[in-house]
Amino acid sequence: MASTTSAAALASIATSTTLVGQHQLYSRIRLATPADVPHIHKLIYQMAVFQNETHLFTATESSLASTLFNSPPFQSFTVFILEVSSKPFKNIHSPAFLPIERTVLVDHVAADPEAETFKSVVANEDGDDNVTVAGFVLFVPSYTTFAGKPGFHVEDLLVRECYRRKSFGKMLLSAVAEQAVKMGFKRVEWSVLEWNVNAIKFYEEMGAKVLTEWRVCRLTGDALEAYGDANY
Amino acid sequence: MASTTSAAALASIATSTTLVGQHQLYSRIRLATPADVPHIHKLIYQMAVFQNETHLFTATESSLASTLFNSPPFQSFTVFILEVSSKPFKNIHSPAFLPIERTVLVDHVAADPEAETFKSVVANEDGDDNVTVAGFVLFVPSYTTFAGKPGFHVEDLLVRECYRRKSFGKMLLSAVAEQAVKMGFKRVEWSVLEWNVNAIKFYEEMGAKVLTEWRVCRLTGDALEAYGDANY
Repeated sequence: MASTTSAAALASIATSTTLVGQHQLYSRIRLATPADVPHIHKLIYQMAVFQNETHLFTATESSLASTLFNSPPFQSFTVFILEVSSKPFKNIHSPAFLPIERTVLVDHVAADPEAETFKSVVANEDGDDNVTVAGFVLFVPSYTTFAGKPGFHVEDLLVRECYRRKSFGKMLLSAVAEQAVKMGFKRVEWSVLEWNVNAIKFYEEMGAKVLTEWRVCRLTGDALEAYGDANY
Repeated sequence: MASTTSAAALASIATSTTLVGQHQLYSRIRLATPADVPHIHKLIYQMAVFQNETHLFTATESSLASTLFNSPPFQSFTVFILEVSSKPFKNIHSPAFLPIERTVLVDHVAADPEAETFKSVVANEDGDDNVTVAGFVLFVPSYTTFAGKPGFHVEDLLVRECYRRKSFGKMLLSAVAEQAVKMGFKRVEWSVLEWNVNAIKFYEEMGAKVLTEWRVCRLTGDALEAYGDANY
């Protein structure tokens, strides 16, 4: 599994002047908390649908809750949540990561058929009852051996369908890159499907290089479990 | 950077009977300690030479020492060291990981031109003065989003040239897989060069699948540093 944001989902960017008929859409990236788990679970399922891989989807809210929050942010598995609102955000307490806010100008605020399902529990706890979870990125430290320095590997990134084409995918990936630089990390990596030329073009425009010679080897399922027997 | 062990380096396996002219080579996989850093540094350099990428080699003993041992083993960056000896190993104290030992039968014990350089400091501290560092594997937790479970990503694996073709690469990779199963992890991944057909064949024989559709995107250097400026 890897980044699934299509380039088309990431194209437009806000201009500085509001034109007639345009609306402001407030967006925020913040650290996930355990209260986000039900939303993260649903977002991962949407990603499995998008990739035609629902047969591989076995994650439960319980498996996510028990694995995602055992280390301080950025030391191990880390999730950023993308939220949107038609009103400015109230401040949240987040000492480990100052939330990133952007105001996006859109021609029309698309109807969100799942607005109620994806109502932000975390924002609501802070008295913000108008906030919707629109996407996420899950990343984890990697290691750049030749540099002797850490990096980040972006495992998955998703922007919900009705919020695509508003630069939110770029905003999420940029937030990971910015955090990497802040921490002195030397690399951010992720995977892309080789036929997704729009995404590849977009990533290259972001400054990434696509490594054409390397292939990922994956050991899972029974083939992996066989190594649990010391007599393999 | 990724696994560089060629399939040829991993082919033969010890039989259970010692034939005339054969010798026993004792081998052990154990967790690295900070005392191994000078050896790890030299092994990474040998990997850079092997990959024709010495221009990318900026790791120092100091950068390795300050980044590799900040978390308990298996929670973040983790290094297994491969050691060889012509005599049985003395026990070492390693509560976090029981060392894995194998005795390999070889037709002749190849001369190791760097035996003195790679003399094991850690084994020597335990009174074992005959032990040589022969390779390493560096791995780090990853996350299988669809399963909601951790995995391991193998960042680099190297067996020194004079110890290749003795199954040590397989032994190192298997040790990572075994540890993954022990911890309930659901995936082990690594990268391979697509033209390295011998390695791919070997990995497939180990049960791995090669993901042909996915490509790695990498953001490094100035392109990454640009994201440190909040105005990117």
